[in-house]
Amino acid sequence: MSEKSELSHGTLSHRLIAEHLVDGRAEPGREIGLRIDQTLTQDATGTLVMQEFEALGLDRVCTEVSVQYVDHNLLQADERNAEDHAFLRSACRRFGIWYSKPGNGVSHPTHMQRFGVPGRTLAGSDSHTCAAGSLGMLALGTGGLEVALAMAGRPLYVTMPEIWGVRLTGRLPDWVSAKDVVLELLRRHGVKGAVNRVLEYHGPGLAGLSAMDRHVIANMGAELGATTSVFPADDAVRAFLRAEDRESDFRELSAAPDAVYDLDEEIDLSALEPLIARPSSPGNVVPVREVAGEPVGQAVIGSSANPGLRDFAVAAAMVRGRQTHPAVSFDINPTSREILADLTRDGATFDLIAAGARIHQTGCLGCIGMGQAPAAGRNSLRTFPRNFPGRSGTEDDAVWLCSPETAAASALTGEITDPRDWARREDVPCPRPRPPARASVNTAMLEPPLPPGQAARVELERGPNISGLPDLDPLPDVLEGPVLLKTGDNVSTDEISPAGARALPYRSNIPKLAEFTFTRIAPHYPRRAAELATDGGPGAHFVVGGENYGQGSSREHAAITPRYLGLRAVVAKSYARIHWQNLANFGVLALEFTDPDDYDRIDPGDRLRLEGLHAALAPGAEPRLSLRNTTKDETYAVRHRLSDGRRRTVLAGGIIPALAREDRPNTG
Amino acid sequence: MSEKSELSHGTLSHRLIAEHLVDGRAEPGREIGLRIDQTLTQDATGTLVMQEFEALGLDRVCTEVSVQYVDHNLLQADERNAEDHAFLRSACRRFGIWYSKPGNGVSHPTHMQRFGVPGRTLAGSDSHTCAAGSLGMLALGTGGLEVALAMAGRPLYVTMPEIWGVRLTGRLPDWVSAKDVVLELLRRHGVKGAVNRVLEYHGPGLAGLSAMDRHVIANMGAELGATTSVFPADDAVRAFLRAEDRESDFRELSAAPDAVYDLDEEIDLSALEPLIARPSSPGNVVPVREVAGEPVGQAVIGSSANPGLRDFAVAAAMVRGRQTHPAVSFDINPTSREILADLTRDGATFDLIAAGARIHQTGCLGCIGMGQAPAAGRNSLRTFPRNFPGRSGTEDDAVWLCSPETAAASALTGEITDPRDWARREDVPCPRPRPPARASVNTAMLEPPLPPGQAARVELERGPNISGLPDLDPLPDVLEGPVLLKTGDNVSTDEISPAGARALPYRSNIPKLAEFTFTRIAPHYPRRAAELATDGGPGAHFVVGGENYGQGSSREHAAITPRYLGLRAVVAKSYARIHWQNLANFGVLALEFTDPDDYDRIDPGDRLRLEGLHAALAPGAEPRLSLRNTTKDETYAVRHRLSDGRRRTVLAGGIIPALAREDRPNTG
Repeated sequence: MSEKSELSHGTLSHRLIAEHLVDGRAEPGREIGLRIDQTLTQDATGTLVMQEFEALGLDRVCTEVSVQYVDHNLLQADERNAEDHAFLRSACRRFGIWYSKPGNGVSHPTHMQRFGVPGRTLAGSDSHTCAAGSLGMLALGTGGLEVALAMAGRPLYVTMPEIWGVRLTGRLPDWVSAKDVVLELLRRHGVKGAVNRVLEYHGPGLAGLSAMDRHVIANMGAELGATTSVFPADDAVRAFLRAEDRESDFRELSAAPDAVYDLDEEIDLSALEPLIARPSSPGNVVPVREVAGEPVGQAVIGSSANPGLRDFAVAAAMVRGRQTHPAVSFDINPTSREILADLTRDGATFDLIAAGARIHQTGCLGCIGMGQAPAAGRNSLRTFPRNFPGRSGTEDDAVWLCSPETAAASALTGEITDPRDWARREDVPCPRPRPPARASVNTAMLEPPLPPGQAARVELERGPNISGLPDLDPLPDVLEGPVLLKTGDNVSTDEISPAGARALPYRSNIPKLAEFTFTRIAPHYPRRAAELATDGGPGAHFVVGGENYGQGSSREHAAITPRYLGLRAVVAKSYARIHWQNLANFGVLALEFTDPDDYDRIDPGDRLRLEGLHAALAPGAEPRLSLRNTTKDETYAVRHRLSDGRRRTVLAGGIIPALAREDRPNTG
Repeated sequence: MSEKSELSHGTLSHRLIAEHLVDGRAEPGREIGLRIDQTLTQDATGTLVMQEFEALGLDRVCTEVSVQYVDHNLLQADERNAEDHAFLRSACRRFGIWYSKPGNGVSHPTHMQRFGVPGRTLAGSDSHTCAAGSLGMLALGTGGLEVALAMAGRPLYVTMPEIWGVRLTGRLPDWVSAKDVVLELLRRHGVKGAVNRVLEYHGPGLAGLSAMDRHVIANMGAELGATTSVFPADDAVRAFLRAEDRESDFRELSAAPDAVYDLDEEIDLSALEPLIARPSSPGNVVPVREVAGEPVGQAVIGSSANPGLRDFAVAAAMVRGRQTHPAVSFDINPTSREILADLTRDGATFDLIAAGARIHQTGCLGCIGMGQAPAAGRNSLRTFPRNFPGRSGTEDDAVWLCSPETAAASALTGEITDPRDWARREDVPCPRPRPPARASVNTAMLEPPLPPGQAARVELERGPNISGLPDLDPLPDVLEGPVLLKTGDNVSTDEISPAGARALPYRSNIPKLAEFTFTRIAPHYPRRAAELATDGGPGAHFVVGGENYGQGSSREHAAITPRYLGLRAVVAKSYARIHWQNLANFGVLALEFTDPDDYDRIDPGDRLRLEGLHAALAPGAEPRLSLRNTTKDETYAVRHRLSDGRRRTVLAGGIIPALAREDRPNTG
């Protein structure tokens, strides 16, 4: 990897950005506004997005295509999931959105199959939206409110990234596949290696990678922290769209021959070997051979990180005529109904069943902790993108990330197994299933938007678990309240508003979801916040944070639920980018210590006071404030980083009240 | 139906009973002891059974075949399910039991496929164990401890039932299937119509019913309250066993030509029409045509009440080339991996997927409220056996029970539809799939028992969620304590110890499961019981009940968990049979009011006192006691119905301490 001082040019990423730039200059680090052609929402974030879109007051989405997928909340342990589904369907019918029914598929591969178009922009309220970069799209995962604004035809604001060219050469050896390519990048650069960068792939090695292989690589760009991943739209993409009966959507796209990247990387595919990420970070990558022999209790194939027909077909070919180990739960999570149909037609489903697989419904399932939790401490090998501690649903889990080849070999032997060793012992040739020339396209579970006249008459079906958005009142001029919580560094949005089978069913119900706020690190936070409430509403309070406050998933619930409980200001050493945006979007003032040592001077329970906020947040005013600790009788210098637009948003109490007040968003 | 005064004779039921009678006389109403050849446990009850068997101190089961299935707790929302599975597998390896892995299938159809043998007895810790009567077995659902005793080679004690002959004539018309036969019986006789009776089927109409069709009918004998259901072992059974590669297990069995039944019933199959049970009881049966047109939000095919290949194949044929209604979730729950494999090989799985079905993993799933919960108030059509309120997981559910034909037609139209009407409109001939000549038999997910030497070295894998059995202390001579709860009539075991996705994962963890005791009707019961506890253990308390106390499911957890919390005596107007047994098995004294009006004299919180219990429960002593209400200064006459053997059990604190003390069970 070498760094260059000049700005990159001629890259495909630049071209895609230039074609959609409506605000700002495309220089790394500057905020730019992009026109969004398509949006994607999933159900865990979508119920809120629909309510936000409703609050924006529009009759119909302004995008070329907006699609609502139902892939997260599929367990249906009680009525809430089904009521969310009914609400989402009604919102789709009301607002001109495609509705992908439960069982139709995980958003990312399904969107790629049915809607992805080279050259278009896609904003999605799911961090793996970047997977659509496999088709030459500029695909960006972001917070739900930003997607609602995009659905309303407003630009998406992002920081202009650096463009990181990744040149692929050679061909993948037997038993090594796309997952190993992105694991190699994680091995080299770790989970923050691509922050504020686009990973743009090019080079002769692309010829051996199908569009769905590229999806595997693009998807886990999220795990490197990348803004997105971009592949050219070439013959492999054309073949994919042809198989999907959409060749007319093809448009050839690639970087200029003399393209210059901000950074350069090279991967010789022929030199790769099977890799695996140890528990409990996608960055803990080692060669499989180094950990071979560890006992395995579960092997799962599926998720948007290995969604392709070939990923399942390879596993099916490996287990055909064999039996998986008695101690292993061999779980198959089909990723789209089309792929499940093709696998079933081709006999692969039969082979998997005969070998002892559990065939699950099509969806995300274990990948987001909805079921399939392993026993504590027992190794679970998964083709998933993430293995953060506890994400599986099991507190002391031991989740490893690997290719379908490694997972299937290990399911057969009952221990972590390099598929090359297994193949040598069993004398098995490497299966190389080709993508189908013609996929089992049908739209039985995909409901098209209604015509406008009909749509206008649709009533939203708001079940008792759909709470509506909370009222967000403007920021007062004087803010005073106790420090309800003081956190350490790197608090994640998972710790602020947890995922998993207990909390996820409440993603549409802010009051109920709020009861989970911070409970992973401070079980009494919701109760103590409630004790501050008066007849006038929640009692204002502060949270004090360390470095990188709000890292991790983009879920805006991590801003809304504490705000609902009365959080009006966070004072931290530094912030993770998306959570900082979400705080502003929902009217929470994010302040930074000028002197980080002041962090140590504040104790939980201290009362803090800010005065003259309205003047301090006026356009053009100095971004510095005095924070008074009335308990300790001390004053600290703090600052904010809000643009003039975001100042108006925070003063109004959030974007939605700001729009209601000014009929204009201020995200820039 | 006619009643006869003479005892029945020559029935197949009598023959099966006679061949296994080891204690008592086979006269209706008398307690008899039966030798048990086979046992069946499922995971929700099995973890406790294995601990009970362990407590009995035996090295290995004494049955011909014992099988542990994992079909209930498959969602795995956290580590507890997977840890239960690992514990069960280790117990199977330790005690000489077959282990059927998660995904292998629902116990009842799977047992029928792999282990059912005409003429044998089967005891199972699941109320639908009676389904094996389809093969000419005498198959009895019972409490877990009774199954553990049967595994130990001890007799199963039951009340000798009346034998109810059901003569079938004619042939089923198009679009009417086995489910409609048992729904017809429920329509005629309701959910208590067969209490203390065996339903024995005979007559020329049997010729048109396959072994799996008979399973459908035998299974829902449980919903009529039957002791069990019995079919002859005839050519249909021989064909079934041949297809399962087990023809050598066949033995022809039928009633004598001059058999006389205690009661007689006749059903002309050719006169039946599609039937459906309205919400929320299996007894609310009406013709489908009477409720046609009601909107449908979900249709589910599967469960042990419609497990056969033909049940899915018929649905697949109906939806082939069509699309299910956009508002309907069309859920397919395969019931055994063998059937899923056959369906997949034959193309039916593909047809279902193409029509918009959600294909779920093999297991009970929605049938026991593990997922698939519908939206509140939206009609859900299911081929399941039960639709009690809330059993789906949704508090205000609207679940209907029907045949696969009715469910599939309704999934296509989006409203309750008589399949005959649909077929007429669509001009579709009635599909009549034949049972496969040769099923996809393989045992990839069925682990055989280990040889004794190897088994003895296996350690039980007891995860943190496997609590071990509570210590049960002997009954004191003087019992005094408060009335912690006073219930109305017909309290069910579902209300005493709830099922569903929240509580079921704790079935192996008595202290944790105890926190759910009575909470559906008395949310504070566990806390108030805990407040009575002293250093010496739980504080003794009473529950006062009305008529039919403890009706419903056989789960012994409904006796163990209140006992764990300190319940030592129930005083009720009357008891449901199995719960009364379970109370005795776990050392809870079940008393009846001599004067039912005394029920009204006791208030919650009153302190009750029993003296001289040891003398009063001595062998041969009068079964009458004085119950003192020290709060009201009143005395009530009460009685018990315990045999001498059960008196010893209750005095010892339960069967397990009784065995430990006397090295002999006293269940008779």
